[in-house]
Parts: sequence; structure tokens; C-alpha cells
Amino acid sequence: MQLLPGFRDFFPEDCARTNYILSVWRDVAGRYGFVEYDGPVLESTELYRKKSGGELLGQLFDFVDKGDRHVALRPEMTPTLARMVAARERDYKKPLKWFCAPSFFRYEKQQRGRLREFLQLNCDILGEASAGADAELIALVIDLLRAFGFGPADFVVRLSDRDAWAGFARARGVAEDRLLDFLAVVDKLERAPEADSQRRLAEFAIELSAVRAFIADPSEEAAKLQGILADLKARGMADFVQVDLTIVRGLAYYTGLVFEVFDRSGKERALAGGGRYDRLLEVMSDGKVQMPALGFGMGDVVLANLIASVPVASERRKAWLDARRAAEVFVVLAKEEHRIEALALVQTLRDSGFRTDYALSLAKVGKQFQSAEVVGAKFAVVIGEEWPQVKLKELATRQERLLEVTDLLNALRS
Amino acid sequence: MQLLPGFRDFFPEDCARTNYILSVWRDVAGRYGFVEYDGPVLESTELYRKKSGGELLGQLFDFVDKGDRHVALRPEMTPTLARMVAARERDYKKPLKWFCAPSFFRYEKQQRGRLREFLQLNCDILGEASAGADAELIALVIDLLRAFGFGPADFVVRLSDRDAWAGFARARGVAEDRLLDFLAVVDKLERAPEADSQRRLAEFAIELSAVRAFIADPSEEAAKLQGILADLKARGMADFVQVDLTIVRGLAYYTGLVFEVFDRSGKERALAGGGRYDRLLEVMSDGKVQMPALGFGMGDVVLANLIASVPVASERRKAWLDARRAAEVFVVLAKEEHRIEALALVQTLRDSGFRTDYALSLAKVGKQFQSAEVVGAKFAVVIGEEWPQVKLKELATRQERLLEVTDLLNALRS
Repeated sequence: MQLLPGFRDFFPEDCARTNYILSVWRDVAGRYGFVEYDGPVLESTELYRKKSGGELLGQLFDFVDKGDRHVALRPEMTPTLARMVAARERDYKKPLKWFCAPSFFRYEKQQRGRLREFLQLNCDILGEASAGADAELIALVIDLLRAFGFGPADFVVRLSDRDAWAGFARARGVAEDRLLDFLAVVDKLERAPEADSQRRLAEFAIELSAVRAFIADPSEEAAKLQGILADLKARGMADFVQVDLTIVRGLAYYTGLVFEVFDRSGKERALAGGGRYDRLLEVMSDGKVQMPALGFGMGDVVLANLIASVPVASERRKAWLDARRAAEVFVVLAKEEHRIEALALVQTLRDSGFRTDYALSLAKVGKQFQSAEVVGAKFAVVIGEEWPQVKLKELATRQERLLEVTDLLNALRS
Repeated sequence: MQLLPGFRDFFPEDCARTNYILSVWRDVAGRYGFVEYDGPVLESTELYRKKSGGELLGQLFDFVDKGDRHVALRPEMTPTLARMVAARERDYKKPLKWFCAPSFFRYEKQQRGRLREFLQLNCDILGEASAGADAELIALVIDLLRAFGFGPADFVVRLSDRDAWAGFARARGVAEDRLLDFLAVVDKLERAPEADSQRRLAEFAIELSAVRAFIADPSEEAAKLQGILADLKARGMADFVQVDLTIVRGLAYYTGLVFEVFDRSGKERALAGGGRYDRLLEVMSDGKVQMPALGFGMGDVVLANLIASVPVASERRKAWLDARRAAEVFVVLAKEEHRIEALALVQTLRDSGFRTDYALSLAKVGKQFQSAEVVGAKFAVVIGEEWPQVKLKELATRQERLLEVTDLLNALRS
């Protein structure tokens, strides 16, 4: 009985790490005024056919269910979000600032930073067309990574603008319905052989040198990006961003701003990516709902690689990455005839909020102290012949004192 | 584009409720010294064929993936847990006290308390054979429900023991390999017509009246249950439990203790259920790992029904069930030329841990105050011509005062 390839078991120490990531994500998104939502793991395959397009469709875990429905495990969140918002947009005041952090599923070749089931934080702003929303979203992605202890030497946000490319292409006579094809050439520019790019650009009667010159100096069309940069500078975030028009992103639904976040070492895949999708809700709702929107996704796999490779001296990270302590207090029963009193004390400690453990069956006192060490308890409370006095022992220092059991809670709290 | 039947969207107000449930689950399990783990959503179908048995196999969301593997969405956690523990049992000191609270999937007919995707808390103790572990697990299920504000008038834990039935059956000549068939008759006793039960019991040469008499007074075989009850009484939990041998549970893998938790109104399905499965790890590991174990599951759907129907005056529940406030502080920009300073202030507030929002684009002051109300902010900070002084306004009382921006953080904290 094996785990499927590309999937993960989360033993307690793995789960503590994932919970650390989720807790930082929720904390920072909350500080930005984002509220959490979620959707189902399974959706109609049609939802993704209608929207995702591109390579995602070939990576679906899709099947026919017992009711003959074509269904798929969600490969991304945006179609679900668009479906939900289109259904109830009148119930919410704009702009919506929504986030979620569930599991996604893609049948991909396994490689560093890629799994078949992964967690991804999704943050979206809906109902706000201004560049102020673009800057707010990018500030959020920066603060999310800063909260893990990373600085400008560790990562960079590469900003681009599909509208800038649309302006460039339009000025050179590219037809509107060929725009996505032109963007696909730009998308491959850094990876494809130069001759291939030249040949494909020739179809649009555009020289590779003109494209390169525009990437080097996009100022004629990139005024919007300058506004976003000024906003981020006001927040003290200028060091985290750079304009890079080679970023286009694969999905068909993006309009305007697109961006990707990379570690500075260049060893990892993108940490996060997103952009504007101002027309998606209109498509999803058959024209009924028109709402500008933008968002990004940040997966847990590449992020965890970066956390593991960049040491950061943060108490919070240390506390979370340490194997989580199972209990704070361990009740040691030294005289079996006091079992009833021991159980009552365990209950009182738990009722008072202390994570408390004890030996579930008869065991020697030395063995019980070993168990206290195993669960990482800070204190042992020994119930023995001194009852109703108990010994309170601090396990690290081995200091102990005798006190009335009625004084125990106060002693533990101080 | 519709949601699939039996699945849920979690709009922010729904998500807040689910997060309230998850937070209580994690809090109480932590107080009992349980640590969190998780597994993959997708497993080999074979894992469930080998173990779950019974009706679960007919309810699988199963399919063949792009790599020709027979896979299924997890319908329950125990097979995954057994697989994980069997693989690494030497890495952990016994007993293990592990919990998880992920999504599960069952293709069932939709009805009150049943969905096709649901959350379920799973708590298990592994490596401990004593009745002390049985009592600890039942105390946990009781404290989990008490933490939602429920008392003995709201729910009851019905305890039973398959070993007691095994003793009863053995004494009456039932062969070991027919024991599960006999238990299946007991399982249906309360729902099947009396004549059916009589006829099926006749196959075992047992009178219905003898079965009923044993249920009414199981003392000859139920000594273990008396020990568990004494333990729970020491914790002040006697009012929450009763012995009820009609509880047998459907799954084949249970041995010894079995229990189910019901609301006292009788309107809902079981709130939780579980028991011992002392031989499952041996089966799962082809005999390599022998480890006594027990656990239970508690779903979110029936629990949410009960929370909605039993009003409880708890500040914590109120705080969580209120539509979650998106922001505490709203920065109102009354003079557009101070936008840079406003953005810097938003950043300072967020860096200091305040959930902070502001208008993403140019808006009239009155509209900005409306937005502050919409996100539920407690304070508005107005940046206007008095800069570098700002107005701090408490939105509920409409009280406001002018202060230096450098004093703002202290004022908000006090």
C-alpha cells in the first residue's frame, strides 16, 4: 500500500510546517482586510473547459461520477471564484478582497517545486479597476513573503502589462484577434532559440530587435506600471519590484497587469504569479456580470523549498518549525490509589486551557517521566503520598517544589 | 455553471463558521495532547478495497487516472492513518495521539446531515491497549462538544463493546467466523421488523428475548465498560454517557469498544462515532506491525445543524459566528495630495498587526466612511489638511480627536 506519486503524507512534523505557512498566509491576508472563502474540491469539468484553457486542461484529474456527470478535481481557484461571485455579486459591496488557501490537483510530471496535490494561497480583489488595486495586491504578495523573514536580497516581483504589449502590437498593425498569438511568442522569448522567435515574429511583420528594444525601454506604453511603482515606493517596497515585460503568463484570461515572483537565486520556480482578469466574470456569467478583477496564487511547495534554503532568525518560525510540543503539563501518578484524583486534576488542567497529558495505563514513575520528555512537556505534576499536596517539577531545570493542589493552577500561570 | 449536488461553496460568512468549528476542534484536541497530521485527498482504490469494506466501497468517487492507476477520493481517514503509521511506526514513541480535520468524499444520497464532501475531525490513539485509552478518547469527544457550549441535556455518548457480544455469542455456540454476521443482526435490531430479526437469529439458534435481556442487563460481559464509566466519572463526565449494546457500527474492522454520539432531541444523525480497531494495522502491514488502536470521527455537517438549533450564550461563538470583520482600522484620505503619506501609514498600521483597509481609488470622504462601515472597522483615521496631525474617530460612538500621527499606534493600542 503506497502513497500515489506526486501526493504527500503529512506526519505531525510536516503538518506543523504546513500549518506555519497557512498561519502566516492567513495573518498577513487578514492585515490587508482580506476575508477567507472556499469552494468545493470537485467541479464540473465544463467549468475549466470554459475558462482555464491552455495546459491546465491537459493536466486535469477528471472523470465521470456515479451520476454520469463529467467532473474534475480543481486545478486552480479562479473559475470557482468567478462562478461564486457571478452568482451572488449583489450581496457584497465592492471591492471584494477575498482569499483562500486550499488544495489543488494537476496531473503533471513530478519535478522540484511541482507536485500533483499542492496548497495554494489565492488572493483576489474584485470590483475595482484602478491601478491602486494593482499596487495593493502586489504590496500584499511582498508582505506575505516578508512575513516569512525574506528581504529584497531573497526575492523580486517582476511586473509586466499585457496592455503595454497590446499598444506595441496595435501600433505595428497586429490584428486584435492575433494578439494572444503574438503574446505567446513573447512568452517563449527567453526559452526559445532566437531563429524560432524571429521566424514567428515575421508572421506579424515585427523585428525581434524592435521587441527587444521595447523590453529594454517600455516607457512609451508602460505609464500604468510607473504609477504602481510610485504607490509601492510610498509603502517602502521599491526594492522588491522591477518592470520586466518578458513576463506574459500562460493563461488566456489575463488582461492588463501580470506579474511573477522569483527567488533571487534563480534556483526555484516562480513563488507566485497573477494579474488582472477584467473580462472573466463577464464570460463566466454569459455577459450578466461585468466586474474588473485581479488576483494571484502562491503555492506551498516552492515556498517551503525557499524557507528550507534561506535560514531566518525568527522566533516565530523557530517555534513553528520545531516539532510541535504535544503537551505543556504531564501528570505523573506515583501512587495508583490516587488515580481518581489524578484524572480529576487532568480534567481541571485541560478545562483551564493547559495542553495536558498523562500515562493511560499503569506505569513506573521513571517511565512516566520519560513520556513527559517525549511529548515535550515543560512541567510534571507528581501525585504521590503527599496528596493533597503535589510536586511541581520544571523538567528543563529539574527544580521542584511541593504545593497544595489548589494552588497548582496559579503556580503554572505565573 | 452550477455547483455539483452534495458539494458546498463557502462564502466568507460560511467560511467563518467552518473556521470556528475547526478552531474549536484544534484547540480541544491540543489540550488533550493530540498532534495534527494529514494525508493525501487521493489514494489507491485498493487501500479502501483492502480495508473499509461494507457500504463505503459502493460510495467511492473512484476513477482511473492518466497513468492508468485506480484511484479514489478518500471516503474516510483510518486506512490512510494505518498506512502512514505502519510505514513509520518505529519513528514514534507509543502511544500516538494524532488528529486531523480534512475533507472526505462519499457518493451518497443527499439528505439532512449528509453531503458528498464534508469535513470530519478524526482523533486516534495508537499503541495503547488499556481501557484507560478508551476512556481518554471518550472524554475527548465529550469535551469537544462541551467546547461548543453543549451540556448533558444536548447530547449523549452511547457506549457498547463488541467483545461483550462476542462473549454472549460464544457462550451460545456461535462459531468465530459467523460473529460478524451475528453482529449485523444486532446492528439492524432497532430498525428491522421483529419477525425478520427472529428469523435471522434462529440461524444462530438464539432467541430474540435472550438478545433483548442481554441488552437490558449486559453486566455479565460488560465489566470493561464499567471501568470506562468509572474513569469518566472521575472526570465529572458521568452525565454524558450511557451503556447501549444496540450500538454495533457498520465497519468490519472494529474490535472491542464501539460508541456513537447522538443529540438528545433525536432529530439529527450521529454527531460522532468510533471504536477500537486493534487488528487493522496488522492487516494493513501484512502482519509486520501489530498495534492496538482506537479512534473516532466527528463530521461538520450534523454538528453545524446542532450549533444552529441549540442557542448558546458564548462570547467566543458569537464572535466567530458574526460575519467576520474584515478590518479594524480604515484610513480615510480627505486630501488627495497626501496619498503617499496615507499609503505609508496603511503600511505602518499593517506592519504593527492591525487589520487595515482604505479606498483603493479616489473617492469622496462620505463614501470612504461608508466603506469603513461595510468592512466593520472600529476606527477611522482621517488624513486631511491637519496633517501631520490626523483625526481618530471611533465609528460606533462617533467620538473623534485630533492627534499627532506619531501618537496614533499608541492611541489605537490603548
